[in-house]
Amino acid sequence: MAANNLPKAVKRRINALKQLQVKCAHIEAKFYEEVHDLERKYAALYQPFFEKRQSIVGGEVEPTDAECEWHSETEEEEKLAEDMKKKAVLAEKEPANEGHYKGVPDFWFTIFRNVDMLSELVQEYDEPILKHLQDIRVKFSDPGQPMSFTLEFHFEPNDYFTNSVLTKTYKMKSEPDPSDPFSFEGPEIVDCEGCTIEWKKGKNVTVKIIKKKQKHKGRGTVRTITKQVPSDSFFNFFSPIKVSGAGETLDEDSEFTLATDFEIGHFFRERIVPRAVLYFTGEAIEDEDNFEEGEEGEEEEMEGDEDGEDEEDAERDLKPKDSGQPAECKQQ
Amino acid sequence: MAANNLPKAVKRRINALKQLQVKCAHIEAKFYEEVHDLERKYAALYQPFFEKRQSIVGGEVEPTDAECEWHSETEEEEKLAEDMKKKAVLAEKEPANEGHYKGVPDFWFTIFRNVDMLSELVQEYDEPILKHLQDIRVKFSDPGQPMSFTLEFHFEPNDYFTNSVLTKTYKMKSEPDPSDPFSFEGPEIVDCEGCTIEWKKGKNVTVKIIKKKQKHKGRGTVRTITKQVPSDSFFNFFSPIKVSGAGETLDEDSEFTLATDFEIGHFFRERIVPRAVLYFTGEAIEDEDNFEEGEEGEEEEMEGDEDGEDEEDAERDLKPKDSGQPAECKQQ
Repeated sequence: MAANNLPKAVKRRINALKQLQVKCAHIEAKFYEEVHDLERKYAALYQPFFEKRQSIVGGEVEPTDAECEWHSETEEEEKLAEDMKKKAVLAEKEPANEGHYKGVPDFWFTIFRNVDMLSELVQEYDEPILKHLQDIRVKFSDPGQPMSFTLEFHFEPNDYFTNSVLTKTYKMKSEPDPSDPFSFEGPEIVDCEGCTIEWKKGKNVTVKIIKKKQKHKGRGTVRTITKQVPSDSFFNFFSPIKVSGAGETLDEDSEFTLATDFEIGHFFRERIVPRAVLYFTGEAIEDEDNFEEGEEGEEEEMEGDEDGEDEEDAERDLKPKDSGQPAECKQQ
Repeated sequence: MAANNLPKAVKRRINALKQLQVKCAHIEAKFYEEVHDLERKYAALYQPFFEKRQSIVGGEVEPTDAECEWHSETEEEEKLAEDMKKKAVLAEKEPANEGHYKGVPDFWFTIFRNVDMLSELVQEYDEPILKHLQDIRVKFSDPGQPMSFTLEFHFEPNDYFTNSVLTKTYKMKSEPDPSDPFSFEGPEIVDCEGCTIEWKKGKNVTVKIIKKKQKHKGRGTVRTITKQVPSDSFFNFFSPIKVSGAGETLDEDSEFTLATDFEIGHFFRERIVPRAVLYFTGEAIEDEDNFEEGEEGEEEEMEGDEDGEDEEDAERDLKPKDSGQPAECKQQ
């Protein structure tokens, strides 16, 4: 802007203001560290509720009638519809095994299906495995440790791998980049680490086995050898590309893959784990997806983009969010 | 989504999970209150830097050479360009009054011009008034008080009004709406209050005086009366529409006007006041405006929309933001 054709004396003062701005960026970094401590504190407060959720989903606990009271228009409608049926003597019998559903079957698997960002990663052969997923938990780094969080995917014993927990750790940075201090906007995911999945024999869905014929030079005999090649799978989520290897830069594809991985990690932590039931029912998706473009908007939403609302949505337009609320990943 | 054709026993458990979710929303509200306390704490830490900024902008303090050191590519280029000039013996003389610029002339006024969201509100006749704007400060509500923040616009003595400070207070709400607890995303601006501007005679730019001829019924004599009608002006910012009047609802236009007002208040607090110098130089705008669509993107940015980046911008794609960072107002 006009700042370039300023008199020297004024430019000089602007530089002083910029120095002050850099100091403020460093104070801001401290602010975000304290917010992170608060998140750690509150994670402990949410914990009992998440455990209760898990015990209900897993069927270990049957909630009381009081705990199950809920009113929503749709339910009202359903009731009405049912009354009608009864009157018309069409009342359908509850399935005999009604009582025998354990907890909430396929709770997490259904979430994976409802959330585009995840369903895009899930291959058909991943589905039977994900049906064994019983809980997803977020663990924050301990105070004093470098800022990070770990996603824990808890599985029931299954025929695919021996791990009971698969983990993905996201490392964060909360300090202004000296080369560009003004771009600092708070802690950012800068790297992640997966885990080794102990696949049972022949169950590894992240690789395909292809057969290859080989001819022996001398004897001319032909033998068939098998070769492993990587295969698309959600479970590649646990063996991400490395960024940490400083110096060498990633090609655009890898950078994009990694960016998406970070978005997903952020989204698990910020949205799915705290509000799982709403992603199971789809409410979280419908709520946030008031785009004209429907799908498109939803997708953006899944990418953590928060501007999923249209002008008409005055209810929310009227309420800009305050600081300190979960920020969304950026994606255009 | 499939949640509707679930067996009753499972639906029942889902309702229990929803009850848990509501409890979590109320814990979340407490989290945001604590974040707000943190913001109050940090506001005090920023204060001395903002005062230093003001004293440099106002010309009360001349920064030392050390305080003015700054390196940027563009400056390097400028230096080079100057050396060239000198060689070509074209060195333009510094204006004689070089030393005599007081502080940073038109600092805040320039920011109003650089930020689309604001420049759109500024009328030609507002400009000479805004040139007297010397500082903008944010004051948070005291602990225990209802959550709010006040924007203070400090003016030097001027020919337009007698107030030295114009204020705009934004009231916030940080609790889940009982009728829609799941939409809770943190504190939201719910109302605002302006102040009375003590305009000097004939200086009120928020009204136009129009002349009207009136004919006396009986005598048939004609007299000219003057009538005040509202006029566009930035200073209408200090007499916003009322929402508080519960019950009666606003028409769409008013709702949109109010939504925009809230966006602006949020943007002053979240962006302009903390990073004023970067909006003066335009860096904050350029930084955040990596849209293909340039202008369009910048505008959105001005509306506090944070997704101003394109896929190629891997640098930032790689870094989803963590919780607790200033959230942006929503606008699509």
